[in-house]
Amino acid sequence: MLKYEEVALKIRTLLENGIYKTGERLPSLEQLKADYHVSKSTVIKALEILEKEGYIYQSRGSGIFVRSPKRSGYINLFTSNGFTDDLKDHRITSRVIEVCEIKTPNTELQQRLHLTKQETVYYVQRVRYIDEKVLCIEKSYFRRKLIPYMSEDIAKGSIFQYIEDNLKINIGYSDIYFQISTLNQEEALLLNQTDGAPTLRYEQVFYTQTGVPFDYSQIVFEQSSAKFYIPSIK
Amino acid sequence: MLKYEEVALKIRTLLENGIYKTGERLPSLEQLKADYHVSKSTVIKALEILEKEGYIYQSRGSGIFVRSPKRSGYINLFTSNGFTDDLKDHRITSRVIEVCEIKTPNTELQQRLHLTKQETVYYVQRVRYIDEKVLCIEKSYFRRKLIPYMSEDIAKGSIFQYIEDNLKINIGYSDIYFQISTLNQEEALLLNQTDGAPTLRYEQVFYTQTGVPFDYSQIVFEQSSAKFYIPSIK
Repeated sequence: MLKYEEVALKIRTLLENGIYKTGERLPSLEQLKADYHVSKSTVIKALEILEKEGYIYQSRGSGIFVRSPKRSGYINLFTSNGFTDDLKDHRITSRVIEVCEIKTPNTELQQRLHLTKQETVYYVQRVRYIDEKVLCIEKSYFRRKLIPYMSEDIAKGSIFQYIEDNLKINIGYSDIYFQISTLNQEEALLLNQTDGAPTLRYEQVFYTQTGVPFDYSQIVFEQSSAKFYIPSIK
Repeated sequence: MLKYEEVALKIRTLLENGIYKTGERLPSLEQLKADYHVSKSTVIKALEILEKEGYIYQSRGSGIFVRSPKRSGYINLFTSNGFTDDLKDHRITSRVIEVCEIKTPNTELQQRLHLTKQETVYYVQRVRYIDEKVLCIEKSYFRRKLIPYMSEDIAKGSIFQYIEDNLKINIGYSDIYFQISTLNQEEALLLNQTDGAPTLRYEQVFYTQTGVPFDYSQIVFEQSSAKFYIPSIK
């Protein structure tokens, strides 16, 4: 664990256990620096992490404030890196429907993933569950150029963990677009819903830390188990 | 305009006009500092703004990268400060349904806004339109302690602009929670939809820069005009 992650972990523990309370002001940068015997830039990095997780809000000039704790079971869409990470208190499992290579990606895929003409992609379709309840259907397209191997076994677990740990790809950021929609017959069947049930139709492109797109995913959610949270700022 | 806002505006203009292209690396902090004849901390503040708007991604160690431009007409939920700000290329208007004072706020309101027993709130219900098309129904509750006056005239325009400009309240951050739902009869009528149409049921609590909640809003969206975007990170 890096120094700043260690400091973040310590402060997070104090926040989660109510030592620092909602609305309270955290100690100043200088104070935290002295408390943890680290450099100012280490404190800044630690606070950045906690800000992104929605624990604190850093106000220019007024200090650092403790935010309200996130309600349990909601997916944080701002730091979402797949669901596994964010819903760590819940059991996320997957049923693999299909894993195959697409030799001739369509125009939409070419555009979203910035594919060159010769490039192919892996296609993975999964139904995902939260605490044994169906959560969503996920259709993901991975660039073979970056993800040279994919299998049903890998898709059963966390694909992102595989990408980070085995392929040593540093995941950077993602663009999320979504809108209100209804399920078609095929989707409804997989989600145990009725044809035409309300859903959220969701698209996400994931990029590496150097801005290279490697995963384009389309997701539809089951109405009752999908709940979302965003720690928004002005 | 503050120095860092000016630098942000200049870089944003270059980004919007394709001088810096998607996937490209921006000049280094040192270079930008020299280019704009400002201090390093001014550059850092300017880049922070552009990062939050989803224009750039700052990777620790690898540099600053240009993100894909946001598709037009989508609401950025990460920096959403009411819709007026984010949809500035679109015409946002409001029809005021009700403005009144609630003398005895219920438990939910008390909780969300951290009300003391004596506190009252203003209730504002509006239907909001984007380019003359219906977008959502918004029911907002404002703490009278912070917003001592509210009227139909104010509610017709941007309430947030009124709060910032006239009441000199600095808006800080907000918590957004939402889930998939269906419209009830009353909502469907106001949104020109059918009873039971799919929607997104959305709750947002806004806080001042020093962490004081002042606005709790419940929103339901019209299916076809509501489109959302989040510039997410790992």
